[in-house]
Amino acid sequence: MKIGILGTGTVGETIGTKLVELGHTVTMGSRDAANVKAAAWVKKAGKHAAAGTFKDAATAGEIVFNCTSGQGSVAAVTSAGEAALRGKVLIDVSNPLDFTKGPIPILSVGNTDSLGEQLQKAVPSAKVVKTLNTLGAPLMVNPRSLADSHNLFICGDDDGAKAKAVELLRSFGWRDEDIVDLGDITAARGVEAYVLLWVRIYRRFGSANFNLKLVRGK
Amino acid sequence: MKIGILGTGTVGETIGTKLVELGHTVTMGSRDAANVKAAAWVKKAGKHAAAGTFKDAATAGEIVFNCTSGQGSVAAVTSAGEAALRGKVLIDVSNPLDFTKGPIPILSVGNTDSLGEQLQKAVPSAKVVKTLNTLGAPLMVNPRSLADSHNLFICGDDDGAKAKAVELLRSFGWRDEDIVDLGDITAARGVEAYVLLWVRIYRRFGSANFNLKLVRGK
Repeated sequence: MKIGILGTGTVGETIGTKLVELGHTVTMGSRDAANVKAAAWVKKAGKHAAAGTFKDAATAGEIVFNCTSGQGSVAAVTSAGEAALRGKVLIDVSNPLDFTKGPIPILSVGNTDSLGEQLQKAVPSAKVVKTLNTLGAPLMVNPRSLADSHNLFICGDDDGAKAKAVELLRSFGWRDEDIVDLGDITAARGVEAYVLLWVRIYRRFGSANFNLKLVRGK
Repeated sequence: MKIGILGTGTVGETIGTKLVELGHTVTMGSRDAANVKAAAWVKKAGKHAAAGTFKDAATAGEIVFNCTSGQGSVAAVTSAGEAALRGKVLIDVSNPLDFTKGPIPILSVGNTDSLGEQLQKAVPSAKVVKTLNTLGAPLMVNPRSLADSHNLFICGDDDGAKAKAVELLRSFGWRDEDIVDLGDITAARGVEAYVLLWVRIYRRFGSANFNLKLVRGK
């Protein structure tokens, strides 16, 4: 499959590399088509990897991942453009974290709105699916690396789009029974809010190599 | 031990009943000393249960639980008063949930502040410990009812106060290895934010009988 990745950070690189390994053709997009990090990634990832602008990546991809940092996500998706994203599944992995206010990040949007919803509003004809934002990049694409099972949340307004996202998640190693569909895109308020707890746990453990398992009673 | 409970809702009643069962003497406090729910609880809970005002409960307790609904917590603790709470451990179980804005509650404080912090500011000479706010009342006092292990968060500025809270938590069935100390009271921002995710999971499962287990890699 042809997949676009918006963003050249650790998340974009990790997901992009996994997708190439799985046999997909990946275009990594950034503000500047000559982005140095994207070029280095293409060199490393091989012939099924390419780089370009946000618009190039969105145009090339049948499915597109938003892996930009939260503060730049609306601009990145807007720059990719509604025309390039129309009808496509846009998997939003970002979090609206603002690191400028102190040692512990805060959310720049939340409670009554979410970044997932803002992206859906920015490109109404795309089908935004929020997932993978609740864990560190290595775990996103290698969930079986933990000894116990653990859960992944997904939400979005379009069930077909969520099903397509789940297909890719399965290929990353996520099992159907571990994926929890929280409903429409407003549930992004919940999974993005959780990141404020994630950060505290991360600081406590000194490691991002953890995730949540939902333990249920009868 | 003598313990005060602020609040007559499900959480206060559940914790109060458990404490009486464990042999403690419990005073349940509310705005009105003649509160009907508190009187009914006292009748049911037996001779080691009493009822009174917030101030009565705080005065009677060597340790005090805040189990009021979040929108009334600062008023309740303020009404209990600094004099009654001075030097005491105040275990804050509340969440700043506002149910007036639609079918799904929002937080009335969060991100850069928390209810836990507001309570600590309201009664600076008390030692606020935030815990138990991340799960439903029955699980708070009966954690072993789930088949798998699961985690409980605790935070607060005073290590001695957290140790005293942990003693009570142990008597509820929480194991030391399942209790995660997230640091000072500002971590309440994390555990209170998580409740926005909890609500979404609750709606998905149609049950509050679940909790989180942190699954860690090596």
